[in-house]
Amino acid sequence: MARLITLLTDFGLRDGYEGVMKGVIKTICPGAEIIDLTHEVAGQDVAAGSFLLGHHYRYFPAGSIHVAVIDPGVGTSRRVLIAEAGEHTFLAPDNGLLSFLPQNNSLRLFEANEPRFWLERVSHTFHARDIFAPLAAHLANGRSGCELGRPIAEMQRLSPDPPEWVGNTLLGRIVYKDKFGNLISNIASRDLAKLREQPRVVFEDRDLGLLARSYAASPVGKPLAVVGGFDRLEVAVNGGSAAALFKDYQKMRLKVF
Amino acid sequence: MARLITLLTDFGLRDGYEGVMKGVIKTICPGAEIIDLTHEVAGQDVAAGSFLLGHHYRYFPAGSIHVAVIDPGVGTSRRVLIAEAGEHTFLAPDNGLLSFLPQNNSLRLFEANEPRFWLERVSHTFHARDIFAPLAAHLANGRSGCELGRPIAEMQRLSPDPPEWVGNTLLGRIVYKDKFGNLISNIASRDLAKLREQPRVVFEDRDLGLLARSYAASPVGKPLAVVGGFDRLEVAVNGGSAAALFKDYQKMRLKVF
Amino acid sequence: MARLITLLTDFGLRDGYEGVMKGVIKTICPGAEIIDLTHEVAGQDVAAGSFLLGHHYRYFPAGSIHVAVIDPGVGTSRRVLIAEAGEHTFLAPDNGLLSFLPQNNSLRLFEANEPRFWLERVSHTFHARDIFAPLAAHLANGRSGCELGRPIAEMQRLSPDPPEWVGNTLLGRIVYKDKFGNLISNIASRDLAKLREQPRVVFEDRDLGLLARSYAASPVGKPLAVVGGFDRLEVAVNGGSAAALFKDYQKMRLKVF
Repeated sequence: MARLITLLTDFGLRDGYEGVMKGVIKTICPGAEIIDLTHEVAGQDVAAGSFLLGHHYRYFPAGSIHVAVIDPGVGTSRRVLIAEAGEHTFLAPDNGLLSFLPQNNSLRLFEANEPRFWLERVSHTFHARDIFAPLAAHLANGRSGCELGRPIAEMQRLSPDPPEWVGNTLLGRIVYKDKFGNLISNIASRDLAKLREQPRVVFEDRDLGLLARSYAASPVGKPLAVVGGFDRLEVAVNGGSAAALFKDYQKMRLKVF
Repeated sequence: MARLITLLTDFGLRDGYEGVMKGVIKTICPGAEIIDLTHEVAGQDVAAGSFLLGHHYRYFPAGSIHVAVIDPGVGTSRRVLIAEAGEHTFLAPDNGLLSFLPQNNSLRLFEANEPRFWLERVSHTFHARDIFAPLAAHLANGRSGCELGRPIAEMQRLSPDPPEWVGNTLLGRIVYKDKFGNLISNIASRDLAKLREQPRVVFEDRDLGLLARSYAASPVGKPLAVVGGFDRLEVAVNGGSAAALFKDYQKMRLKVF
Repeated sequence: MARLITLLTDFGLRDGYEGVMKGVIKTICPGAEIIDLTHEVAGQDVAAGSFLLGHHYRYFPAGSIHVAVIDPGVGTSRRVLIAEAGEHTFLAPDNGLLSFLPQNNSLRLFEANEPRFWLERVSHTFHARDIFAPLAAHLANGRSGCELGRPIAEMQRLSPDPPEWVGNTLLGRIVYKDKFGNLISNIASRDLAKLREQPRVVFEDRDLGLLARSYAASPVGKPLAVVGGFDRLEVAVNGGSAAALFKDYQKMRLKVF
């Protein structure tokens, strides 16, 4: 059975850009199964794409190939990466999209430098179709990173942005806003382990009360803090949008104690 | 061959929430085929989701498994339902989403109460990934509702909202607005059978003329009434949007005679 | 293995209209693989749909079946076309959607006139589900156009709109705007072959400089001209939207020399 391929881009769904990637993949690997992770990452938002892929990929079968194309530098000399990390393989431009992969012995990086595995004619603006899709199909056909590229030691990484401890208080910030207006922070559930079981959460100057168990733990319309599906502390409003309530959320600080 | 799984949610397509459900399904049932019915149901609009699923599921193959997650009560004590109805199986939170299934002998209901068929770690905010997706995969692998849950007698149902007869006039209202601005009513084609073949339709105080055969039966820009793809009477505008023309459509009454 | 089916519509993703097409296809041809090309073509914009399909279909495997439904005339006497063109087969309403297929000996056209290959009950407003989807499934099952319809000689075509030469200057216009605000013109790379290797591009009265190699060739925020993924000259802004910068782009002329 061919390996499963996931796609994550900022292409949207209007122009057929992700559809045509699938045509290329199925031409080279007819048995490939392709799943859209999302194509609606905000335009050129590498950090958001990295956040989503880094959380979601773990839920896919071992052997999956994850193609991520948010690529402001398309057509420049930025490298095309193949990253083998444990049982998952990743394809992405070398711009920080794969920052969630720890630099350790189980990470093997390659620069795709073998044009014979790309489409014969490569545009300067659409490498997703002309380079990434063919590479994904060849991986699904059983090729390995070292056949498609040359080993490299390092890749671009986004600056890490962990929460901080000030005394016994954990300080964090919002790093992702979802479709419902839930505000997901840089505080992971493991960071909370050093606090009491149900810590208090303050968002800038608004007391959100004790960490809640579910969105419905607060009255409708009231904000709360909860550990959500990303296994991160998030700020939410039961039946509403925290992003609409806290318009300045990007500048606001979370305090947990 | 594994059974086909359909997904209907209000998750949107931005955050990978529906993509990650597919990763979970394919991990547990590698042969599953998954079709998106829609992920763009208006946020937490259980009635709209029920309307769509109740109409569309009949067009899927016998044996299909339909997963519907519009779930304002996620993380509370609301139950997770498995409903076997004829040749189709449904998974949904117990909040009225499955109201279209008649309460009769062919309906068998179960409450999912066997955590060994869920993901090992279950979040309080994302049961679609952690409970619904694994259950769908186990159903696709051939498990039945009585293995995954315990039989229950009843489920939550939305209040029925049939059209009314006043003398020889049928009174209805709009229950769904589609992407084109077509306004779909609670009047089914079978309700029209008691009227003359081409009845007259009045929308509040606007005469839409005799029931039309197609959208193009009216001049461009003019409203008309037609029996559409949902097999319901709908108000449409040829080449335009009835929802834009009739801004107060939710308060307006349809009269058919 | 069943043939691959692609779908292109203006249905959007809210109402399950494209999802239910897949249910019909899988009921008739359980082995069919279905890929969404796009469902977000602007409402009833036949020219945009034709532009996208005409460029993208070439990237799909030989034997693919392409279903395109942008259909303002649904329910009228407009014909349902089956077009066999080389190794690809197309299904569309006869309204110009397939204008990109040249009228030559390798094009075989049929009008679908055999209701036994449609759903038993055909609505007047949703032929995508009731006629196009079943026909696609029967094609995927191995039927040919001459079984599903009767041969016809011609189809509707949109007026051609090629660029013009005035002396040594090539004059063009914008024919498609993509999600990023890139403005794609009617000037193909082959049209540029008669000019010097790196011609100058002027957009109405704005000098875009010499034809660039990639989006990143210009400073962030500056417009440029590039040959993009459609193999057409397009106007773009590095890190921005050309459509936002040139609000009147539909009236503006491209001059290349």
